[in-house]
Amino acid sequence: MVDVIEIAKSAKDASIELLQVSSDLKNKVLTQIADRLEYYIQDIINANNVDLKNAQELLISGEISQSAYNRLKLDNNKIRDMIQGVRDIVNLPDPVNRTIWSKNIAEGIILKKISCPIGVIGVIFEARPDVISQISSLAIKSSNAVILKGGSEAVETNKTIFNIIKNAISSVNDFPSNAVNIIFSRDDVNKMLTADEYISLIIPRGSNSLVKYIKSNTKIPVLGHADGICHIYVDEFADIDKAVNIIIDAKCQYPSACNSVETVLIHSEIKDILLPVLLNKLKENGVIINSDENIQNEYSEYVNSIADNWHKEYGDKIISLKIVESIDEAINHINKYGSGHTDCIITEKNLNAEKFMMFVDSAGVYHNISTRFADGFRYGFGAEVGISTNKTHARGPVGLDGLTIYKYKLYGNGDIVADFVSGKRTFIK
Amino acid sequence: MVDVIEIAKSAKDASIELLQVSSDLKNKVLTQIADRLEYYIQDIINANNVDLKNAQELLISGEISQSAYNRLKLDNNKIRDMIQGVRDIVNLPDPVNRTIWSKNIAEGIILKKISCPIGVIGVIFEARPDVISQISSLAIKSSNAVILKGGSEAVETNKTIFNIIKNAISSVNDFPSNAVNIIFSRDDVNKMLTADEYISLIIPRGSNSLVKYIKSNTKIPVLGHADGICHIYVDEFADIDKAVNIIIDAKCQYPSACNSVETVLIHSEIKDILLPVLLNKLKENGVIINSDENIQNEYSEYVNSIADNWHKEYGDKIISLKIVESIDEAINHINKYGSGHTDCIITEKNLNAEKFMMFVDSAGVYHNISTRFADGFRYGFGAEVGISTNKTHARGPVGLDGLTIYKYKLYGNGDIVADFVSGKRTFIK
Repeated sequence: MVDVIEIAKSAKDASIELLQVSSDLKNKVLTQIADRLEYYIQDIINANNVDLKNAQELLISGEISQSAYNRLKLDNNKIRDMIQGVRDIVNLPDPVNRTIWSKNIAEGIILKKISCPIGVIGVIFEARPDVISQISSLAIKSSNAVILKGGSEAVETNKTIFNIIKNAISSVNDFPSNAVNIIFSRDDVNKMLTADEYISLIIPRGSNSLVKYIKSNTKIPVLGHADGICHIYVDEFADIDKAVNIIIDAKCQYPSACNSVETVLIHSEIKDILLPVLLNKLKENGVIINSDENIQNEYSEYVNSIADNWHKEYGDKIISLKIVESIDEAINHINKYGSGHTDCIITEKNLNAEKFMMFVDSAGVYHNISTRFADGFRYGFGAEVGISTNKTHARGPVGLDGLTIYKYKLYGNGDIVADFVSGKRTFIK
Repeated sequence: MVDVIEIAKSAKDASIELLQVSSDLKNKVLTQIADRLEYYIQDIINANNVDLKNAQELLISGEISQSAYNRLKLDNNKIRDMIQGVRDIVNLPDPVNRTIWSKNIAEGIILKKISCPIGVIGVIFEARPDVISQISSLAIKSSNAVILKGGSEAVETNKTIFNIIKNAISSVNDFPSNAVNIIFSRDDVNKMLTADEYISLIIPRGSNSLVKYIKSNTKIPVLGHADGICHIYVDEFADIDKAVNIIIDAKCQYPSACNSVETVLIHSEIKDILLPVLLNKLKENGVIINSDENIQNEYSEYVNSIADNWHKEYGDKIISLKIVESIDEAINHINKYGSGHTDCIITEKNLNAEKFMMFVDSAGVYHNISTRFADGFRYGFGAEVGISTNKTHARGPVGLDGLTIYKYKLYGNGDIVADFVSGKRTFIK
């Protein structure tokens, strides 16, 4: 039996050792991980086949969804992508031990703000086993220790990938062996959530209920998003073609993504031009349409049912449509029912765009562009830890920087505060 | 009776209105607050006298300490400082709506990272009533709404200052009147801690037990420090004069401050030169000395008792001394028993200083300078929200920036992700 508190404690010790590990050493470990994942591809696929076989029964009994089953499945292409992801992280700049700024606060006293790792991070994720190598690599690059808990359906795949990573770490001298850790059961997660003495951040990646459960059951700061209820507001000054193209992309390009659109708000002045085109396009693309009563009355042949829950994240080819009388009504609706993830205005009037982007209180506020762009890779961060709807620490797509904090280094030469209080010395303004 | 959830809800509404308030308007409100505090000084002193009279009974019965009583007392000088504090905040740069960076992520697609307020912040503080105007002003300057809960001993002073602030806000057109709010009872605090739907950050300023209680009873992120167990390590290569001066300053200049030193670790190679001088100086300054057995055996005339709790924050003229055999032992001791606040090495060997500053996992790591410098004003931040020992969001002395987060604004022209997935378009590397 694993003792999770012991794991957390030795991860904390490893996190102190990690404070001095050089960029070169970290990159050496990452390259070893990539090389070994490549060498053991067949082992990974074999383990994954065991998981898939077990999952098939869960699929039949309805305990897991088809999309969860699909996420569990690792084919050669997915593994290649996973390995390339590790190699890409090698090429990113080291996010720690960077001087953010440096200044003299008084004659002879230098203050430096230096980026540094957070310490120990706990990451809880569901079916996707490729997350293990991604998160381990991001943790290593940012000099954090990590404790991973994967989905139980992926246990064999997770174990295999984890062992490859562990062996890669052991093969490199001077790299702390307890930097990457794994736990398996729900009980272990609950124990981990109590280890606030050792763990400084929890990142849950998965369903709303998972994230909400985590947030309610730990003193440790949690980084993540519970919901992705994204909106597109089609302003009265919208370009119809742009609106339709963007809505179709935002709904259909990958409907289960958290940044896909759930609700479209349409200004009443433009509805008669937009709706005939939009409804047809949505239907063509196999999207089920829920709407307010106005739209249902006028276009009953297109509308499946009355939208009665504006808080709903479909994560599927289903969309809610609603008429609004003003940009203010749209903004209020989004701030009330949205999840603070990503929301977009379609308009040719820049003043309206700026107003929308000022007042919508979301991590991403977009003008004339698909919500599907909300992504660390697309933002050019090179890697993504996840997407955050937090209002502290990190918001929106989180890159390597989100796994860092800073410390202040103060250099003096025997300086005492008493000399400043007495007026003998003064601070630089 | 106040309904705290209603207060939190209207504070949230105010926080949305605050998103568009200009720098000029915010500074106008702040100037009104300062002017009115000045005009009503006598009212504040009268209210404070009522609180002081009530507190005298608590002082006699031992329910509050002399230092809490002193913090409660507002004289003319303290009120002048409080008013100057508000005026100083007027002169600071506006921390929100600042473009942190801006870049093209693909042809025609611009991504901007813009600083913005957090939303609603709950601040819980103990006896010091001057905190009300300080925190209200910082919240206004950073466009956040705030809910304040002061110490019950200061209730009359708090009410008076709060009403002056409220009236100042009402006197300025277009400024949301619910930006600053106050609650009074412990029950109300407990309700506030459940309002995670509306409140995005809690800042407790007060005793360890207050901070620990808050952290254990809310899902809302908490910014603050529970303990200030600061260390000074006197390395074998230390300059004795610097060591003694810095230790005396760090212990005696203001012993109840969280950045005053609690434990001095002394390398065994230097103890015979350092201790005779240091112990005399500490005694001269009225400091009670606890120590390990080695020091007690040799200098029993100086030592009050054996130090048996290295986790202890004295907050008084009491100090713990301990001999260590190496810099590594010192680092390990600090990482084990410290609170991650501020820790200092005294040495003339830069290599040792860098090692210490790398491995000590604290918000402030100092070389040859008093721990008492850990302060937002001394760091040149112009104002201080508090000191944080968090490993996320903000660490160390927190200035106005700690009350901000950011949003991403993405500007396109009808762009869809499908074009990038198909390879028709590419992102800029």
